[in-house]
Amino acid sequence: MNAPLSAARLQADPAARPDPERLPPGLDRAGRQAQLLAQLQPLLPAHALLWQAEDTTPYECDGLTAYREQPLAVALPETEDQVAAVLRACHLLGVPVVARGAGTGLSGGAMPHRHGLVLSLAKFNRILKVDPQARTAVVQSGVRNLAISEAAAPHGLYYAPDPSSQIACTIGGNVAENSGGVHCLKYGLTVHNVLKVRGYTVEGEPFTLGGEALDAPGLDLLAAYVGSEGMLGVTVEVTVKLVPKPQLARCIMAGFPDVQSAGAAVAAVIGAGIIPAGLEMMDKPMTAAVEDFVHAGYDLDAAAILLCESDGTPEEVEEEIGRMSEVLRGAGATRIEVSQDEAQRLRFWSGRKNAFPASGRISPDYMCMDSTIPRKRLADILTAIAAMEDKHGLRCLNVFHAGDGNLHPLILFDANDPEQLHRAEAFGADILETSVAMGGTVTGEHGVGIEKLNSMCVQFSPEERAQMLAFKAAFDPLGLLNPGKLIPSHARCAEYGKMHVKRGLLPFPELPRF
Amino acid sequence: MNAPLSAARLQADPAARPDPERLPPGLDRAGRQAQLLAQLQPLLPAHALLWQAEDTTPYECDGLTAYREQPLAVALPETEDQVAAVLRACHLLGVPVVARGAGTGLSGGAMPHRHGLVLSLAKFNRILKVDPQARTAVVQSGVRNLAISEAAAPHGLYYAPDPSSQIACTIGGNVAENSGGVHCLKYGLTVHNVLKVRGYTVEGEPFTLGGEALDAPGLDLLAAYVGSEGMLGVTVEVTVKLVPKPQLARCIMAGFPDVQSAGAAVAAVIGAGIIPAGLEMMDKPMTAAVEDFVHAGYDLDAAAILLCESDGTPEEVEEEIGRMSEVLRGAGATRIEVSQDEAQRLRFWSGRKNAFPASGRISPDYMCMDSTIPRKRLADILTAIAAMEDKHGLRCLNVFHAGDGNLHPLILFDANDPEQLHRAEAFGADILETSVAMGGTVTGEHGVGIEKLNSMCVQFSPEERAQMLAFKAAFDPLGLLNPGKLIPSHARCAEYGKMHVKRGLLPFPELPRF
Repeated sequence: MNAPLSAARLQADPAARPDPERLPPGLDRAGRQAQLLAQLQPLLPAHALLWQAEDTTPYECDGLTAYREQPLAVALPETEDQVAAVLRACHLLGVPVVARGAGTGLSGGAMPHRHGLVLSLAKFNRILKVDPQARTAVVQSGVRNLAISEAAAPHGLYYAPDPSSQIACTIGGNVAENSGGVHCLKYGLTVHNVLKVRGYTVEGEPFTLGGEALDAPGLDLLAAYVGSEGMLGVTVEVTVKLVPKPQLARCIMAGFPDVQSAGAAVAAVIGAGIIPAGLEMMDKPMTAAVEDFVHAGYDLDAAAILLCESDGTPEEVEEEIGRMSEVLRGAGATRIEVSQDEAQRLRFWSGRKNAFPASGRISPDYMCMDSTIPRKRLADILTAIAAMEDKHGLRCLNVFHAGDGNLHPLILFDANDPEQLHRAEAFGADILETSVAMGGTVTGEHGVGIEKLNSMCVQFSPEERAQMLAFKAAFDPLGLLNPGKLIPSHARCAEYGKMHVKRGLLPFPELPRF
Repeated sequence: MNAPLSAARLQADPAARPDPERLPPGLDRAGRQAQLLAQLQPLLPAHALLWQAEDTTPYECDGLTAYREQPLAVALPETEDQVAAVLRACHLLGVPVVARGAGTGLSGGAMPHRHGLVLSLAKFNRILKVDPQARTAVVQSGVRNLAISEAAAPHGLYYAPDPSSQIACTIGGNVAENSGGVHCLKYGLTVHNVLKVRGYTVEGEPFTLGGEALDAPGLDLLAAYVGSEGMLGVTVEVTVKLVPKPQLARCIMAGFPDVQSAGAAVAAVIGAGIIPAGLEMMDKPMTAAVEDFVHAGYDLDAAAILLCESDGTPEEVEEEIGRMSEVLRGAGATRIEVSQDEAQRLRFWSGRKNAFPASGRISPDYMCMDSTIPRKRLADILTAIAAMEDKHGLRCLNVFHAGDGNLHPLILFDANDPEQLHRAEAFGADILETSVAMGGTVTGEHGVGIEKLNSMCVQFSPEERAQMLAFKAAFDPLGLLNPGKLIPSHARCAEYGKMHVKRGLLPFPELPRF
């Protein structure tokens, strides 16, 4: 049976309000920490609660390393009872809670709250069930994405969404961010591959969303929960779909003389009614950086390359590779190379999957954008980004989930130079706002977190943001779950609107008033 | 760009509150009607506003004919501007609004509110676009389900969800109820086949949920909207997925000596890893009623029959029909007949699709239940229903979407005999509660409406219902959209709990206090 999130009982039951035990507003950090620890210590084994600076420092940021906060403490519960007890205690004290998986997120969604607790799900790492007949797996939220596919492999099955960080990132984080990956064009995002989520509300009450069947009773809140960035509840268990491993996969690497024709080729492939198993694009600066690092065998003369994959039965793949090659050639490809064996196919993809670390080798820091645009505007955004390189005086490498119009421009800079950081932020904001102006969005798969709060002011109207806040309040009326992320306050957007005129940026992060 | 529902601006903007013009509580029906008409007449052409009893009577119920209400008026807007203006006017007056498509719903979801307006989308009947390349269609909400498939047919495409009422029911109603059909086991429910919905909030503000791409910006509320039974907004336009018509479809009609072995056969087919394009079950009283009516060619000696369809390429179908036949025979089928041509296949299905009218021929009235159970409990629920026939002194015919465990028991009775109606209601409640006790739910595809309000008290805890009400309030704080449906009030459930002890039932419908 399906239990929707039940935080609303606060409204129904005034006795459940946390006010009486709430930490007094004037209390200093040491006082807050002492009171929080006093409540949590009886609930957890000693090794499952960290609060010394040397222990909490590894948790001060996620993959968005430019912004850091020290939490009051880090809890690493080992059982669901402990998760519930920790949430209950924090709720009564009015202490914010930031849930965390592997911390590989790129938008700061798991950055701690300075007055809050980090709730790590690292110990929730068991694969509870692989059901080859139902093609499902039930796993705890701290299980790594790739570990699911590894557990399913003996049955010829795998979990389709494959973020580049899949060796480390956890399914709980994937659910929070609605993660994508190179196979999502054909197989869908996390939201399309998750059947059921079990978790705990801000009050420590258990809930279940979705179910094993096509449909579950009650309002269908699973899709809204997936991608809600830890604002609605804490996930402890996820039931995912598994799909059969294709008999064969082959990948085309196609080189193009300019980015315009590469962009047009992407539209042509989709327009021909083909849904490739992957359709990725890299520009010349990116292939140069990658080739140096992993020797993927890319066309280094091309202004841009496409990776275009087909999977299925050998007959399907042969037919589709033929059609794809024809379309790519018709769109102006100057070189087409089809992987001849699995080793070559994996080499093609290893280049794509190592695009971020390859960028890290040629620049002290990089900032990865994640906006989306309609596919037909791919060439336009590349032209615009090239102009922005001059405007902001920084280099940018481009790698795209081209098939679904999701950009990952990597802005290179040196974070130790505050002036460069400032320019990188302005460059990033420029890309996001240009994407929105072209009919796109500020985030494709990395989430909003703290990184894109300002851009949300541009993407959404005050009425739309008010609606999001009302939705959040229906689950977490006190705003204790991951506060200050995802949905910008009206005050912040008003401020941003003023500063925006001067192309300036607000300092991160925005933290809620206590 | 995607605009989430924005009703929450009420909280942000006190000036938008409707109190000043709200109809005074003491006003009688004629006074209310006069004030409503005075506001609406300037907004609509004369023929688009009905209020005389002879004009509004056709709208007094939907397919659940046992319960009727006269609305204050019926509006039939022809443009989106008119929809927005009508909603704005009702919002300012505090008048409830019940949106209506074809009125084929079976749970009373479109039954009028006695103090409210019926907003018919009948004039929103245009197919705006069929895009064979993207495999999508954009249609207005009053377009009939089957009309979409007819418009897509020249491109070899169709819209998969196929409720039995598909010749009449509209896509707007399908979205409201998350309608299913015999093909949904393989192709998904409405929620899996809708990409985007455009509509208007209770305040008359436009919104868009979802989009053409895999994912849309903002919270993913589309799935929660689908199946929300008109509680969150009024739909004016729907973008649906189209799927290629299979090259071939063939259907097996299999007869079984008892309902137990037929139920076990369903589990065996799914357990063998086969997802049939349809998997339906009928018991002997049902096949007898149907055969008399449409001469479908069913096995009349069998205690129960299964219809089990395969579609795809000829090779796929041949292989799957072979495997299905083997599994069915192994599960005890005494007769197996495979459709030899399209005419025979359609004859098999016409029997299934005419099960409801066939029941209407042998009984003055019937009440159709819609609960779900885990597939493995099919035989158990049939045994339980047989015992209930004696207990309640009424006959029941059984037709199931067996593949997804969705029951449609048809309780035969005479509505002109109040005592029979009472027994039919008790019989229905018995089926629903037994389904829940077996691990199922009170509704598979017909919705809650007013029909299953009491059963929602059984299915969900007070905390869960409070959460649903909080969710509703985030979109419609004043509760003006289809009030008194879907989510029972706490008072109603408390009352039902008391009466339940005596196996009695509350009078329908429950209407909210004014």
